[in-house]
Amino acid sequence: MIIMETDATQEQIAHVVKEVKKYGLRADVSKGAFRTVIGLVGDENKIPFSHFAALPGVKEAMGVEISYKLISREYAKFFEGVSEPRVVKVGSIEIGGSEPIFIAGPCAVESKTQLFRIAEGVKKAGAHILRGGIFKPRSSVHSFQGLGAGGWEMAEEALTWLSEAGRKFELPVVTEVRGENQVDLVAQYADILQIGARNMYDQDLLTGVAKKGKPVLFKRHFGAGIEEFLSFAEYIAAEGNKDIILCERGIIPVGKGKSYTRYTLDLAAVPAIQKETYLPIIVDPSHGTGRRDLIFNMSCAAIASGASGLMIEVHYDPAEALVDAQQMITPDELKDVVSTCRRIHNLTMAKKK
Amino acid sequence: MIIMETDATQEQIAHVVKEVKKYGLRADVSKGAFRTVIGLVGDENKIPFSHFAALPGVKEAMGVEISYKLISREYAKFFEGVSEPRVVKVGSIEIGGSEPIFIAGPCAVESKTQLFRIAEGVKKAGAHILRGGIFKPRSSVHSFQGLGAGGWEMAEEALTWLSEAGRKFELPVVTEVRGENQVDLVAQYADILQIGARNMYDQDLLTGVAKKGKPVLFKRHFGAGIEEFLSFAEYIAAEGNKDIILCERGIIPVGKGKSYTRYTLDLAAVPAIQKETYLPIIVDPSHGTGRRDLIFNMSCAAIASGASGLMIEVHYDPAEALVDAQQMITPDELKDVVSTCRRIHNLTMAKKK
Amino acid sequence: MIIMETDATQEQIAHVVKEVKKYGLRADVSKGAFRTVIGLVGDENKIPFSHFAALPGVKEAMGVEISYKLISREYAKFFEGVSEPRVVKVGSIEIGGSEPIFIAGPCAVESKTQLFRIAEGVKKAGAHILRGGIFKPRSSVHSFQGLGAGGWEMAEEALTWLSEAGRKFELPVVTEVRGENQVDLVAQYADILQIGARNMYDQDLLTGVAKKGKPVLFKRHFGAGIEEFLSFAEYIAAEGNKDIILCERGIIPVGKGKSYTRYTLDLAAVPAIQKETYLPIIVDPSHGTGRRDLIFNMSCAAIASGASGLMIEVHYDPAEALVDAQQMITPDELKDVVSTCRRIHNLTMAKKK
Amino acid sequence: MIIMETDATQEQIAHVVKEVKKYGLRADVSKGAFRTVIGLVGDENKIPFSHFAALPGVKEAMGVEISYKLISREYAKFFEGVSEPRVVKVGSIEIGGSEPIFIAGPCAVESKTQLFRIAEGVKKAGAHILRGGIFKPRSSVHSFQGLGAGGWEMAEEALTWLSEAGRKFELPVVTEVRGENQVDLVAQYADILQIGARNMYDQDLLTGVAKKGKPVLFKRHFGAGIEEFLSFAEYIAAEGNKDIILCERGIIPVGKGKSYTRYTLDLAAVPAIQKETYLPIIVDPSHGTGRRDLIFNMSCAAIASGASGLMIEVHYDPAEALVDAQQMITPDELKDVVSTCRRIHNLTMAKKK
Repeated sequence: MIIMETDATQEQIAHVVKEVKKYGLRADVSKGAFRTVIGLVGDENKIPFSHFAALPGVKEAMGVEISYKLISREYAKFFEGVSEPRVVKVGSIEIGGSEPIFIAGPCAVESKTQLFRIAEGVKKAGAHILRGGIFKPRSSVHSFQGLGAGGWEMAEEALTWLSEAGRKFELPVVTEVRGENQVDLVAQYADILQIGARNMYDQDLLTGVAKKGKPVLFKRHFGAGIEEFLSFAEYIAAEGNKDIILCERGIIPVGKGKSYTRYTLDLAAVPAIQKETYLPIIVDPSHGTGRRDLIFNMSCAAIASGASGLMIEVHYDPAEALVDAQQMITPDELKDVVSTCRRIHNLTMAKKK
Repeated sequence: MIIMETDATQEQIAHVVKEVKKYGLRADVSKGAFRTVIGLVGDENKIPFSHFAALPGVKEAMGVEISYKLISREYAKFFEGVSEPRVVKVGSIEIGGSEPIFIAGPCAVESKTQLFRIAEGVKKAGAHILRGGIFKPRSSVHSFQGLGAGGWEMAEEALTWLSEAGRKFELPVVTEVRGENQVDLVAQYADILQIGARNMYDQDLLTGVAKKGKPVLFKRHFGAGIEEFLSFAEYIAAEGNKDIILCERGIIPVGKGKSYTRYTLDLAAVPAIQKETYLPIIVDPSHGTGRRDLIFNMSCAAIASGASGLMIEVHYDPAEALVDAQQMITPDELKDVVSTCRRIHNLTMAKKK
Repeated sequence: MIIMETDATQEQIAHVVKEVKKYGLRADVSKGAFRTVIGLVGDENKIPFSHFAALPGVKEAMGVEISYKLISREYAKFFEGVSEPRVVKVGSIEIGGSEPIFIAGPCAVESKTQLFRIAEGVKKAGAHILRGGIFKPRSSVHSFQGLGAGGWEMAEEALTWLSEAGRKFELPVVTEVRGENQVDLVAQYADILQIGARNMYDQDLLTGVAKKGKPVLFKRHFGAGIEEFLSFAEYIAAEGNKDIILCERGIIPVGKGKSYTRYTLDLAAVPAIQKETYLPIIVDPSHGTGRRDLIFNMSCAAIASGASGLMIEVHYDPAEALVDAQQMITPDELKDVVSTCRRIHNLTMAKKK
Repeated sequence: MIIMETDATQEQIAHVVKEVKKYGLRADVSKGAFRTVIGLVGDENKIPFSHFAALPGVKEAMGVEISYKLISREYAKFFEGVSEPRVVKVGSIEIGGSEPIFIAGPCAVESKTQLFRIAEGVKKAGAHILRGGIFKPRSSVHSFQGLGAGGWEMAEEALTWLSEAGRKFELPVVTEVRGENQVDLVAQYADILQIGARNMYDQDLLTGVAKKGKPVLFKRHFGAGIEEFLSFAEYIAAEGNKDIILCERGIIPVGKGKSYTRYTLDLAAVPAIQKETYLPIIVDPSHGTGRRDLIFNMSCAAIASGASGLMIEVHYDPAEALVDAQQMITPDELKDVVSTCRRIHNLTMAKKK
């Protein structure tokens, strides 16, 4: 849609119409008493709106179509007649299926012993997938960056542990790929490749990871609106990989004074995103709140909002963890989360369409 | 705590210490290799931190104490030995008690017929309290501002309807007081006085409303962090009125691209606030999302997060409503919300401390 | 504009068209391959968009017209042929005229001596208008709330000082009206009535102040976008009072980690607002940054961005001030600001249209 | 600093003190009537605060030291006695020196002809450095991604043009490195390597780029506070490369209603950052506003705020540009910007310390 200035001339309107036609679209001109509005009919993706915004007499030029058509529920229904949500399969685990899925494990893999002990704990607590960070994104270069910082050999060894722990406890494993150069290595060991929140905008990394053909756990950046989040998920889909698990993990707190949580967990994004795309979405209450004492409540809330699963940081002794100690829960606490969340899921699913 | 510049001189440090003593506090000086930090011991509320920030050699001056001590859970426990949350009573209804409370009704009272029909509907659906706006805050002066805009007589008539509907259907009533001059009139008819989100910062209104001694439903401003929200609730408590029902109703969406919800419902604020204050907190998913199709999910999520109740806009024919049509649900839909939320509440309460 | 769902039926489209006509507008239907869009032609202010958003088959309903037509530059030009910016006159001072205007004084009036000493200082430094707060909005009820908190008599005495200082040093005076009950009193003494940022949304206060017919200094709320800011200025204009001086004073800092300024001074709002409205806009770098050491730079930047003036907190001994000590500058520093800003104004005005 | 809960026991306090000592720091215990605070004396970078936050009895654990000590002005002064800002040299151009530097050119390189014509234009207008994007980060995968998207050969050819244009018009050149795999190629041709706002958090890319030893133009992410921005610049410095040119380019607009600018240009960040670090900072008003009609004003404002230079998108025919057409200015307009900015710089520099 192109909105003209009130004093736009006939020539300026005609010029815009001509330009629209150049791009193969139809221009429907609506003349009001005060202002003329030009509707675009056709494939808006062909239109460089910033070009039109720069034409004389134009007040505003904006699209009404979405930029994530490959993962759009509405497009899938319209063009392919598909209205079911997508289920992403990892071995026998189904994300987006009839049961909520729990991904759990340490923030960072610190040693084989630590990892195996936690893996055993989360398995017993009812988790389906094991997480463990090897390449850790950190705000300070002076903080522990994960075992991956110890060189490729150390990284590969840690990946081996992850893979072994997964086999031993029958848990598919997920770990973050932080940079392009890590893609090949991580893809050899992990069942799901994670793109962290900080890398959501890194389109080269997205493309590289997508090409591996493995399921991608894709986290929303803390500065991204929903539209932007989905537009970047589209980069993965554009490589032909639609096994994308979206993950809400909190956005930047806004407001005067302290917020008391590390981020603002945007749970309404869960059902809002489910209206927009057929992809499954899970929630990470650990990073989303940054507070161990809020994990139980926010896990319940996330599942009640309709999330297909949770991603939770777990440690047998949270205070000992090298990273994120204040947001870890114990395997016992995880057990409570899993059992209550399952019951909430059953309650709410019955009512939801 | 006062953090000195690295090159602060001995004289500057001594001057700060002297100033601290003037205010009746003790100054504990910690000298590090790099920097000196001065801890303040005593009543921080006596300290004008901006004064200290302006002294020579000072890098930063900041308090570690909270500004909402009258409603603080930690203070209540420490000074009065009280650790139970407060239950606000309105007739036989208990907000913050063992059951979740549902406040429902039209966004704006439009006519006696409309109000009574909705009141009957929400009563049957299981609501406990009737809401209905008469003085409506609006972003545009050219929009319908509620019947209160029709003059004091019209306003009083609408208040009478509200009061009558409340009696008829045995529902205490709540309505918004938008300006100081409306306090006396509204307090004659309403059981609970509401301060809307836009007026959260209006301290004269808060004081005026608090003085009426009736329970106050106090909504968080969409630009306020939790600390600021509680600091303004303190204005009400400072008048000796602690019957305050806090209400989370969404904060400004942040992020590039569209957010797809009118506000960001900050559900983690619910348990976070419950750790800070003994006051009950409820959630308004109607304004918080602005979308009718998200109300069910977000109501469930709000209760799962630990909220003591919900405030929901209801209309027998949403599209007919003069205000907020797109976020109203029907009485039938409310019934589903009430029954599912009750069951979630029972599930989660068993587990929460 | 009304955007239909892709699977909207012919009946649903026809129903929307019928509804549009009910409100006296024309509906231009644009059918694309994928989606139908309905353009509204006529007075959009008559349209309750939330009603349309709630109709079956509708994906989104949104206006393209602005909600602040009374103060709109485009409307003024179109309907009245006026394209000049408005100059607000206070005695012989012209805000929005050919020279930048400097409003200066203490944050809070603390005593007659303090006020007169500062008034003399700012006059000598080149200020045109004297500011001084008597009713101070504060985040904590436990902080100093201005002399106005000492009762009506104290408030009136402080207002008398302000008025006397203004006469003595030939400076019109401005002070904040924080609540409706203060309007009559303050209007007796002040030449300009200020609405503070926290009260921007308080429409009853806006209406009350506007009715006094005196110039209104209207500050942007720290959580308000430009559109919302102007929509509330429209409340003042709707009372027939167009002597409105807009004031940008910083918005909520957004972003992970510390921001190092109290607010984010949105200087691009200055020229952006000047394109939207004919009203003059000034900048308050004191509140906007909260840092004395940034005032000079940000004053220069504000004038360079096109602001018609500045509002600056001044104290002969900043550290002594009871409120906002860390953001005050001295009269000598103000002098530098005034002289440099005047020269920048001359430089840039020559080039701007 | 570690703040204890009011009901923390002696044992809990003793345990915290013991833990602090483990990390080689001293613990200064301040007991107040209400609460105990433990000050940490020593190298805070050794402290995992999240570990302490997770200890029993601890309310809050937070550092008072900065995480960007390698680029800190205060540290440089304290440890090395250096208090001068750093000047980054690129050939004969000095960024952070006595004159403001203008970087200008097309948003995206589209063809050799386009690039050379614009290069000639910006040179004549007074620019010092030529910009031109080859690997373009875009929100939509369906938009033009720059010539770099055409494969490595096409990318290299475009880089050759850039390098040739630079030589021909005696302008050092800067272009963005969007992904790790592009580092080697781009470093062969560009004089300055740019990290775009979207990639600010991509620490592997930062490290890769830093290692090339060339000056790095480092843009602030639109969701990053100043502290976070500087913490990531530290990743570059940690590789021994301190030739970092910081760039403010706007943060996410916050606020209800439309903002009318693409981002919020945070000009107070300029002097605030100059107090924190010795690195030079420039401003990009093109992306910061997204509006061609605001470039002149905001360029003047940026220089007045103290910026060491500007980065501006220029095109001989803005409407023709494939990317960002609405925010481009012409070479003639650039000339006005350059000349007015130079005069403002002279005016304000005289006064600033």
